[in-house]
Formats: sequence, structure tokens, C-alpha cells
Amino acid sequence: MSDTTPPLVVIGTVAIDTISTPFGANKQVFGGSGSYFSYAASFFAPVGLVAVVGQDFPQSYRDILAERPIDLSHLKTLAGSTFRWAGKYEGDMNSATTLQTDLNVLLEFKPELHYPGEVPFLFLANIDPDLQLEILNQAKNKKPKWIACDTMNFSIQNKLESLKHVLARVNAVILNDGEARALTGESNLLRAAQKINAMGPDYVIIKKGEHGGILYHDKRLFVIPAYPLEEVFDPTGAGDSFAGAMMGYLASVGEPSFENVCKAMAYGTVTASFTVENFGLERLRRLRRFEIEDRLAVLKKISTI
Amino acid sequence: MSDTTPPLVVIGTVAIDTISTPFGANKQVFGGSGSYFSYAASFFAPVGLVAVVGQDFPQSYRDILAERPIDLSHLKTLAGSTFRWAGKYEGDMNSATTLQTDLNVLLEFKPELHYPGEVPFLFLANIDPDLQLEILNQAKNKKPKWIACDTMNFSIQNKLESLKHVLARVNAVILNDGEARALTGESNLLRAAQKINAMGPDYVIIKKGEHGGILYHDKRLFVIPAYPLEEVFDPTGAGDSFAGAMMGYLASVGEPSFENVCKAMAYGTVTASFTVENFGLERLRRLRRFEIEDRLAVLKKISTI
Repeated sequence: MSDTTPPLVVIGTVAIDTISTPFGANKQVFGGSGSYFSYAASFFAPVGLVAVVGQDFPQSYRDILAERPIDLSHLKTLAGSTFRWAGKYEGDMNSATTLQTDLNVLLEFKPELHYPGEVPFLFLANIDPDLQLEILNQAKNKKPKWIACDTMNFSIQNKLESLKHVLARVNAVILNDGEARALTGESNLLRAAQKINAMGPDYVIIKKGEHGGILYHDKRLFVIPAYPLEEVFDPTGAGDSFAGAMMGYLASVGEPSFENVCKAMAYGTVTASFTVENFGLERLRRLRRFEIEDRLAVLKKISTI
Repeated sequence: MSDTTPPLVVIGTVAIDTISTPFGANKQVFGGSGSYFSYAASFFAPVGLVAVVGQDFPQSYRDILAERPIDLSHLKTLAGSTFRWAGKYEGDMNSATTLQTDLNVLLEFKPELHYPGEVPFLFLANIDPDLQLEILNQAKNKKPKWIACDTMNFSIQNKLESLKHVLARVNAVILNDGEARALTGESNLLRAAQKINAMGPDYVIIKKGEHGGILYHDKRLFVIPAYPLEEVFDPTGAGDSFAGAMMGYLASVGEPSFENVCKAMAYGTVTASFTVENFGLERLRRLRRFEIEDRLAVLKKISTI
């Protein structure tokens, strides 16, 4: 696929996670922001994954990505170990406690964007903001139509200057409520969204876990509930899947209008609702497009006033 | 008005509150679950208030209720002081810390339901569940069509048996997310709603503060966001106003179908959004019905997928 540039490219992490939830633990979960994003996006549009793994990265995991229209020409393998993250969920499982982070090959990663064609949709998933900036610089001559980024508490606390440079240069940011509050010092999310909007992104999307999400754009607002689930098995990757399906849908329609971004958030919401039903990519691997449409219809039905 | 039975009757508290918020404090706020409920309900239907006050209850407060179609024939005055509550809000203001509760005349209150006619809609607002049961017993010969109740953490912790008797005999319960979790031991709200449903009420309505609310009925679900506000000045009475507008709307249409309960929740949501813009009933006193309709239109618009 490397001679055909995908309409959507993501830079993110590919990881091997150790996850503990009230329902069980798993020490060898295929994860990472780039993995979840690209797998979810691939239900809507072909996607290119810019990421790095170590020599220990299992071929079986690579095969999982290769099941889908995911371009792996930019998935580098470096000497050393793959990025590893260990986290734990408790109580209402709305947020993870990070137990350990081993950056490993991420420390040596020099991301490159050498697709031959234009990249209309670009996503900067959770990764060091200096790497996000690196890709932003290289994207200049790829005529990007819409660039969105994610962020994380670690960047807000330790890389605020780099993060602000990223925010000043993207069209949209997707972040969770805790991050929005930490970034702005505002407990009211509407005011937090307004402040983040003033930092650069035209579109501010705040995810609220089980409470859904909000979009703020040009003084307009859109709110969407989460898809109601009786059981969340493992929330890891929910945010990345949300962003992946959202960007995948936008890349498939080509036009990031307010209405399309709203619809894209709905696709993001329902796609993420499948991710959390099992560890890692397990549920998404069994997912069919009609199931996404079915849940979207339910979400519309239960939220129509 | 006492010879005309209102279509909606509420038993609740009438209180003088001392409230502290990050925006200021006020030591003499006209409050109580029955006050907020009946004032909010009165925008939709005439409402009868079954409550008690002490001899210190200011005539000016009584006049505030009398501004509206609120039947005060069942508002008793007893020797002693009016019920007083003192509470404090901090941070995201999603929940109050109770600083002091002086039950005063509430301790002597023997509620009576001696309206001449039928009472199709009855609401048991936040008050001791034994008083709620007292009214339930008296309501038997009033041909109630739909009875709903509120509850509070105090009842869940200290009056669980009485509360369960109430729940077994009402059509609907309105409670907040923390109460739903405390009552069922379930952190997942959908499962909590199912468990509460099994305790008796056909309709389970869970309020989630700034995150809106959900309705569970007969395996059907409805979710509604909160009306987005840049500033919540004082959350006191939001839940009671929600219930009041909701029950008032249902009493006005007469038929508590699933669709009507959904619409009633939307009216509850937008009416409560006005309550929290000032202390006590101040904002509701200036409220006009067209403003409710305007916000309902906004809520529909921003939540349509």
C-alpha cells in the first residue's frame, strides 16, 4: 500500500500493555494510541500509522493491524523493546492509574512522513508533543485539510510549552474532562472549552467518559451521551478508538464541517463502546460495520428529545 | 383555592437555608424541597403544597409562593421554628456538604391530605420517608394516577426500610447518581437503574448534575444532557426544580406515557437550569414561560445527532 497515500494518517504509540481491572488482569495486551486509533479508523477509511516498535514486537500483533486497511509502511522497527504501559482501573473505572511506563524504543523514535501524496486528514494521537510537532513540521507540504490532536495529563504537567505550540497549529483538539480542567484551571467545562478554543483549535472536543462528550466550535455547542453499557470491561483505548472512528468518518466524507464533526463524534462514541467490551483490540477484531450502525441508531433513539 | 383540588400535589419541606458557594454566601435563603418543587411545577400546572413552617416563617416568603398558582391550604404553621438547612458547595459544585440541619417543626409534622377531589399526580419530595408513607396511605382514596418520589442519602443510610416501603408503592423515583449507587451498591448506572426498577418503581430517573439524566423504564432507556451553563451560581434546589417542572408538565398533559416522561424530563432540565443561576427562588421569580421554551429549543438543537 505504500505507494498509495491514505487519506488519514496518525502518529501515535504502539504498545504492549499490562492492564488490571476489577474483572481481571492481562499482562500482554496489544495496545497503544496509534493501534486503537488506526484500527477504529479503518472501519471508515484507509489509514496510515506512523509509529515505532521494538524487535520484540510479535508478528501476530502486526498481523492484527494488517487485517484491516491500515498502511504499515511507516511502522518502524528499532533495536530494543516495544513501548510498555501498565495501568490499573478501580471503582467506576472512569480513569486509569498508571503503574509503569517504559518508553523503550519511543526514546529513539524520529517520526517521518514520507508518503508520496497529500495527507488531507492528520491525527496526532497521545505521544510526546515534541514528536507531534515534528510531524506537524513535516506535514506542511502535505496540504493537510484538517489536523487534530489528542493530549494527556503528562504533557500538560511536563511539556506545557510544546503542547501549546501544538495547540496553536491544529484545527481540533480532543481531550478528556480532567485534562481540559488541568489545562485551563476552569472547573466549568464550557468555560474550559472556550479557553482552549482561544489557545488555537477551532474545534474543541471534550470527552467525559461514561457521560459522553461535548464539542465547542465558533460559539456553537454539541453534546452527545456515551453509548450506555451495562458493563465496561476495560476502558483502555476508548479515547483513541473514539478519535479514530471520528477522524475515519471525516476522512470518508472529506469535509470537516460542524455538522460532519457532530456526526463523526457519534461514530466515535459508538465505536469506542465496542472497544471497552474486552481487552485490547479483541472486540474491534470481531466488529462489523453494521453493528456500528445499529448502535448509532440506538444512540439517536435514546437521546432524541 | 382550597375548594378546587389541584391536579398535582407535593409533600416536601419548606426551609430557610444558609448557603455558601465559591461565589458568595447567604444566610436567609427561602428554600426547601417543597418550595422549589411547587414553584417550578406552577409554570405548567396548579400545584398543592403539603408542608409545615414555624411561626418565624416570614409573610414575604409566603407571598412569594402566592405569586403563583400554588395552593397553600395545606401549608401548616406550627409553634416553633421553620426547618433550617445549612450547606456548602466547593470545587465543581456537583454536590453539597451539609453543615447543619435543624428539623424544628418538621419533628411535629403530621401531614394530611384533605383535598376534596381526586389527586391524579402526587410527588413525595425530599422529606423523611415515614412522612412520605403517611401521605401514601392517605392518597389511596384520591385515585392517584401517577406517584413519584425523591430520596436522599440520609434516608438511604438511616431509613432504608421505610424507603423500601415507599419505593414499592410509587410509579416513579427520581434520585441522583450518588444516591442510586448508594442504594444499589452498583457503580454502573444502567445496572443501578435496573436494580431500583426491581424494587418497585416502573420509571427510574437518575439525575447526574452537570451531566444530565437518564430514564429507565420497561427495558427502555432515555438520556438527556444538562442545559450547558457557563456558570452555576447555587445548585440548591436544582433537583427539586427538575422534579417540579417534570411533574407539572405531566400533570398538564395528564398522561404519564414513556414519551411524555421523556419530554417532562426535558422541561425539568431546562427549568432547573434557571434555578441555579441565583440563590433560592430568585431566578424562578423572574422566569417567563417563553424562556423555558427557548432553552428547550436550544437543548434539542445541541443534542440532536
